[in-house]
Amino acid sequence: MNLILLFEDDFASENKAIISGRRAIHINEVHRASIGKTLNVGLLGGKIGIGTVIDKKDDTIELDTKLSENPPNPLNLKLIVALPRPKSLKKVIHIATTLGIKEIYIIETWKVEKSYWQSPLLKTEKIMNQLILGLEQAKDTVMPKVFLKKRFKPFAEDELPEIIKNTTPFVAHPSCEKNCPYNIKEPITLAIGPEGGFTNYEVTKLKEIGFSQISIGERILRVEFAIPTIIGRIS
Amino acid sequence: MNLILLFEDDFASENKAIISGRRAIHINEVHRASIGKTLNVGLLGGKIGIGTVIDKKDDTIELDTKLSENPPNPLNLKLIVALPRPKSLKKVIHIATTLGIKEIYIIETWKVEKSYWQSPLLKTEKIMNQLILGLEQAKDTVMPKVFLKKRFKPFAEDELPEIIKNTTPFVAHPSCEKNCPYNIKEPITLAIGPEGGFTNYEVTKLKEIGFSQISIGERILRVEFAIPTIIGRIS
Repeated sequence: MNLILLFEDDFASENKAIISGRRAIHINEVHRASIGKTLNVGLLGGKIGIGTVIDKKDDTIELDTKLSENPPNPLNLKLIVALPRPKSLKKVIHIATTLGIKEIYIIETWKVEKSYWQSPLLKTEKIMNQLILGLEQAKDTVMPKVFLKKRFKPFAEDELPEIIKNTTPFVAHPSCEKNCPYNIKEPITLAIGPEGGFTNYEVTKLKEIGFSQISIGERILRVEFAIPTIIGRIS
Repeated sequence: MNLILLFEDDFASENKAIISGRRAIHINEVHRASIGKTLNVGLLGGKIGIGTVIDKKDDTIELDTKLSENPPNPLNLKLIVALPRPKSLKKVIHIATTLGIKEIYIIETWKVEKSYWQSPLLKTEKIMNQLILGLEQAKDTVMPKVFLKKRFKPFAEDELPEIIKNTTPFVAHPSCEKNCPYNIKEPITLAIGPEGGFTNYEVTKLKEIGFSQISIGERILRVEFAIPTIIGRIS
């Protein structure tokens, strides 16, 4: 937790926030915060700054906050990712949030295991928890939007053309010849397939609506590591 | 497991490998391999190719192997990383191996929690298990070397000058102004600090022996994600 994310609800007055639960435990146990200690804080959807511990009770902490700076710039990249196995899903949401992505589309493709859609991690509350952890890691306050798209064809045909508008759309496909470009300065849409890759049908669909295929080489990375590797390069 | 890693011991004759344990279970349960099925295989330290299932018993699988291709090229980058928390350590070894790094130095720095050195994950056998999983993920056969360096100063003064010879050495330091360069074509040494960063003393030491500071921006990434983000960009 590089920043304590505060919510409107936490505020007892304009500057005074009272927090409890996970965040209070973290401040006590990790920051070992005594009265007077300052911490990085930020208001969800708002500014970031400093919170000074002004009071502590058993399970609550009072902070006097000064929020004057903007959160880090978002990454101008929309991510479309085939639903991965649950263990990877948490990490995908974490790294996407941490990198500053603000639109995440988690989609069905042919090679996505149908059972993955039953994962409790896909519940709104669980996704929200991962998003919050990612924001706290990156010292950010702007909540990404996560969309679940359970049918590839209507998503690709009806929604994707609008999503990619004014962006350069790329699809990562290990077997393709074209190397991933470096340092694209325009807005990007990046699509990453499931473990077995997109099918030919799916790649063709994506190409039809304007996606270019890119590859980062013959080594196959887990999706949670493919995302930062590609984004480190392309953005 | 995108490739089944074979060891000299597995071979009953020149082409016939008999495997058991974790790999046999994986082949049975994930690949659901019946007789005649072909799998990607590779010999530790050697070539990669195809293994055809020629016999199956309860807990062993016999493969007829044809190994004719070279493994993917290594990444021409040496990684120096401050010992992270145990949960991250596994992932660091995994992603470093998967990216093709062949020299990994895990080092002490001032802000490394001393207790982390007690982690059972640092035992040779446990590290080896992670390396094998990474090779299997990346379809590689060349085992990285992992070095544990428990004292920063003698490592930096006595060993590092030799390690960085004929490479361009970079130290990732979030607060520095210089952006991480893209697509460096020469061999690289990359040093990544602990969660709290390198101390000024440590950064100065590294600069003295030739390291340049680089940053990927104000967002702080977990070390296992900082590695692929930087390497995606720099390599």
